[in-house]
Amino acid sequence: MAKSLDAQLTITAPVDLSAYDSRATTGFSGKKDDAAKHLAEMGKELSDLQEKLFAGGRAESSNARVLVVLQGMDTSGKGGIIRHVAGLVDPQGLTITSFKKPSPEELEHDFLWRVERALPGPGMIGVFDRSHYEDVLIGRVRQLAPPEEIERRYSAINDFEQAFTDSGGVIIKCFLHITADDQAERLAARLDDPSKHWKYNTGDLDERMLWGDYQRAYALALERCSTAHAPWHIVPSGRKWYRNWAVAALLLEQLRALDLEWPVADFAVEAERARLATM
Amino acid sequence: MAKSLDAQLTITAPVDLSAYDSRATTGFSGKKDDAAKHLAEMGKELSDLQEKLFAGGRAESSNARVLVVLQGMDTSGKGGIIRHVAGLVDPQGLTITSFKKPSPEELEHDFLWRVERALPGPGMIGVFDRSHYEDVLIGRVRQLAPPEEIERRYSAINDFEQAFTDSGGVIIKCFLHITADDQAERLAARLDDPSKHWKYNTGDLDERMLWGDYQRAYALALERCSTAHAPWHIVPSGRKWYRNWAVAALLLEQLRALDLEWPVADFAVEAERARLATM
Repeated sequence: MAKSLDAQLTITAPVDLSAYDSRATTGFSGKKDDAAKHLAEMGKELSDLQEKLFAGGRAESSNARVLVVLQGMDTSGKGGIIRHVAGLVDPQGLTITSFKKPSPEELEHDFLWRVERALPGPGMIGVFDRSHYEDVLIGRVRQLAPPEEIERRYSAINDFEQAFTDSGGVIIKCFLHITADDQAERLAARLDDPSKHWKYNTGDLDERMLWGDYQRAYALALERCSTAHAPWHIVPSGRKWYRNWAVAALLLEQLRALDLEWPVADFAVEAERARLATM
Repeated sequence: MAKSLDAQLTITAPVDLSAYDSRATTGFSGKKDDAAKHLAEMGKELSDLQEKLFAGGRAESSNARVLVVLQGMDTSGKGGIIRHVAGLVDPQGLTITSFKKPSPEELEHDFLWRVERALPGPGMIGVFDRSHYEDVLIGRVRQLAPPEEIERRYSAINDFEQAFTDSGGVIIKCFLHITADDQAERLAARLDDPSKHWKYNTGDLDERMLWGDYQRAYALALERCSTAHAPWHIVPSGRKWYRNWAVAALLLEQLRALDLEWPVADFAVEAERARLATM
């Protein structure tokens, strides 16, 4: 494509979420029915590049590593992306961290403590299902910390992310954008299908009541924490097939840009061949 | 199939590994070219059952969990199985643990300490790339512990595994059987392909020199630790496509046997529907 999807989906401040179409298919040139085929084709290349990334980490020849941050309201598709996009690569090279309500131990530390511990190591692709952004989202909406602490966190996050990217990390931050109507439709579908009841949480409706507050908290977080080293992308997520395609495409672009090489042997290949031949 | 693959591959004592054909295709009725298609078809069912398993764990309605233990000489295909078989299910429901040389901290504890911590929780499928069996394999061959300690470990392992299965866990233990010739061929292929050099370790040849000792240590471990609650399977692994198919089939059989059900809603569905409708 002429312009990278990264460039097309990166936010521009100021952010007005209501101006974004959740059902847009930005950058996707095919038809809906082609999406699964496109995704499978990307899967092949993603899987190859991920192996190279992993090899570099294993051989200690590269410090490259990738973090995908998934944020969005309930039903926006964080789990679906893990299943359908992260599921395209070797699970050996993946770490998935689902951030829940902080534990008492986690609360004793700075909000970034548990996040630091979950960062992917060299060669790995880490996926955050929710993240440190919760501390300026639900943290702000539910007033879980004093205003000045919430305020401090935006720049703390920017510094934290910069340290990660300065040392060879790549961060892909995706806000999965849906509307309140999209969510209502999906929650109703969950209620209608007994095989989806386990995904339903009565607390979800409590958060839904604060939809406007969350949208404002998101807009602020996206504005304050979209940086050159770690931009925020708004991924239209009203169509599941597009959402999956888009996140896969963002990941693929970043992996390609790393110009990964196979690690060079740190042993004498001929000598090993000779030794093996005697056995 | 009439007889389960589980029954066909479960070992019978005494174990004489040299009597097993590493290129057998036990239980596979198609042709090699069909294997990828069979695997993809199994993938669909595996993925569905895994979601049910995961749902039960998430809803705290079931304690079921599955542990796949992969053991075998270098190049036998532990990594390949993780990529091609574990990769068929949602990575969110997977934990992969690769057991390396124990750390100083791990050595301060009983050999099962680090293993216990890595067991899959409710709803999860755990895969062990090497395992507690190393402590009676390399442990025995390299005399890393006194003989009486090695001896003690077989029954310690049996007790440990029984505690896991008694509490709702299922263990699928796979010994990936290859011959010394199979290994020589694969190591030579790695040396010939620069994109595989990162997988090559000069220490592998040191272990290869002790092939006979390892085969004896394996035979002993398989005999002593194949129990009714956690039998050992010998998976012929001279053909990669068969090996992948067989481990997927063993996993599928066990998941089917769990008779998994979707968790029942722990909330009033109608009341939630009514509440959602007002928002």
